[in-house]
Amino acid sequence: PALLDGPTIAEQDNLAKRESGVTDNSSMRLRMEAFIKEHQQLIVQALEKVDGNKFKVDSWQRPAGGGGITCVLQDGSVFEKAGVNTSVVYGTLPRAAIAKMRADHKALDPDVDSLQFFAAGLSLVLHPKNPMAPTVHLNYRYFETAQPDGSPAAWWFGGGSDLTPSYLFDEDAIHFHRHLKEACDAHDKGYYPRFKRWCDDYFNNRHRGESRGVGGIFFDDLDSADKDREQLFAFVRDCLGTFLPSYLPIINRRKDMPFTEDEKLWQQLRRGRYVEFNLVHDRGTAFGLNTPGSRVESILMSLPLTARWQYMHEPAKGSREERLLSVLRQPKEWV
Amino acid sequence: PALLDGPTIAEQDNLAKRESGVTDNSSMRLRMEAFIKEHQQLIVQALEKVDGNKFKVDSWQRPAGGGGITCVLQDGSVFEKAGVNTSVVYGTLPRAAIAKMRADHKALDPDVDSLQFFAAGLSLVLHPKNPMAPTVHLNYRYFETAQPDGSPAAWWFGGGSDLTPSYLFDEDAIHFHRHLKEACDAHDKGYYPRFKRWCDDYFNNRHRGESRGVGGIFFDDLDSADKDREQLFAFVRDCLGTFLPSYLPIINRRKDMPFTEDEKLWQQLRRGRYVEFNLVHDRGTAFGLNTPGSRVESILMSLPLTARWQYMHEPAKGSREERLLSVLRQPKEWV
Repeated sequence: PALLDGPTIAEQDNLAKRESGVTDNSSMRLRMEAFIKEHQQLIVQALEKVDGNKFKVDSWQRPAGGGGITCVLQDGSVFEKAGVNTSVVYGTLPRAAIAKMRADHKALDPDVDSLQFFAAGLSLVLHPKNPMAPTVHLNYRYFETAQPDGSPAAWWFGGGSDLTPSYLFDEDAIHFHRHLKEACDAHDKGYYPRFKRWCDDYFNNRHRGESRGVGGIFFDDLDSADKDREQLFAFVRDCLGTFLPSYLPIINRRKDMPFTEDEKLWQQLRRGRYVEFNLVHDRGTAFGLNTPGSRVESILMSLPLTARWQYMHEPAKGSREERLLSVLRQPKEWV
Repeated sequence: PALLDGPTIAEQDNLAKRESGVTDNSSMRLRMEAFIKEHQQLIVQALEKVDGNKFKVDSWQRPAGGGGITCVLQDGSVFEKAGVNTSVVYGTLPRAAIAKMRADHKALDPDVDSLQFFAAGLSLVLHPKNPMAPTVHLNYRYFETAQPDGSPAAWWFGGGSDLTPSYLFDEDAIHFHRHLKEACDAHDKGYYPRFKRWCDDYFNNRHRGESRGVGGIFFDDLDSADKDREQLFAFVRDCLGTFLPSYLPIINRRKDMPFTEDEKLWQQLRRGRYVEFNLVHDRGTAFGLNTPGSRVESILMSLPLTARWQYMHEPAKGSREERLLSVLRQPKEWV
């Protein structure tokens, strides 16, 4: 910023935190940061109870402001790999990036040369060892831009959560979606159907004509065109709050089920598909990997510990493996 | 093509093959196709001798003309996964694709609405089981476009070959590069240095700041601005012809070496990096996966049978694993 500009939003936030901590009257930036860090702890503690092993915790700082906490549990007793990350980023958007964002956020002025931005999010991916237990993914994020003088320009929320089984238990898919639907319905009856469809649409391995998993919810760019900021923050809080009740009963009933060597192999092939989606299609991963200075190990913690690619593998007719594929090719309504 | 246009190049080629077979006087399209199919057989036979197992052979046709032969040996005694593919494609390029290609081929007329095209290539990836034996990749291809009336518009050759060890034996890297340099030098003393640098540049996992492997050669868009078509075809023939002598001695001296469980794990981590390059950065893979109707199983035969991602893995100081990384971070001249 030029000499006449006010303090950057990173400076404003640092000052506000030092002077008065974070309360309900703080800026949304500070409240979102506090919220995701609190839930990161809650989730990590709950998962450590399930697994019996501790997460490795890495904190890192970004020179331009912000930082993150990466929590990873690798080769545990229940989880092959579990990552629960928060990140808070302050930075500057160049003109080209602003032009792109305008497609979804008309409030952005296309005539400024650069904008300050803030992004905070919690991301989680759990890959269990037992092939009967599904992988789960979750991400909730808040984005804000500011004029050079620090005044707000635009903001939005995004996020969602989705389930990726190797072996499909309908009761698990129903349980998972029921919790998400409840969280959505409390805020807007239109949300669940809209965000379920968005999820099926987004997590799709188009080159294979299959969904990555059995769905969940996904949304992006929710801003004042949709609801006011307090309402959307309350919605995101409820979505994240429903994660543990939506997943813990599932992992608890699957983690010790017996399985065969062939079932483990099938899980490994499905892990390969997970890698394909994340590396070929996921916009968040691509954005991260193409951002100079990003923390690659935190981005790629979403990949499973092990994966397999077998040429021309075809599940047997009438098998459980074949049924999963048919559901992935034609997403189902679970609730 | 409209009614007044002549036969398509696919029709011309079919007719020519039926009438007079393929000779030195045939079109470059037919000669390239015959050449890669002949070498596919030679290579498959030589690799079957090394492994002691047979390749599975799948032939497929494209409705619009052309087709391919995919040869895969999976879970053999020497190779974890070996794929040797040829493909021949006839199709039509839309205006947007022509505009992109003009950057490298000024002969292309930007004002035509569509062009017929022909593409033929041989691709090969070998992933050995033994972590002391390096993965090798090779691809040689010929591309040609034609006006709606069938007259030639532009043509070019591309290709290369590169080596990806998990454990670096300098003598292997030297042997491999020496053969490639000899093939290059016989045609142009400037080729080897230029194509070695191009290879280091292309096969780079930018998000990690490391090369995929220890290099080889890579080139693309070699057309009449460089040499005439017969000279370039002769160059590509020599490059492909040098593949077996460049790799067989290496695989033969490494395939039965003793190794530890930790060395196998390191190989699996390196396989993960191979997957990252192919799915995140490789233009050929991205192009294939985004082409409707492409044969995904043939494209992704390049992926290893198994791979591994471990959060924050660091090789021990002074270890062979660390030395490999330092070479991948700063590519070496081997000859």
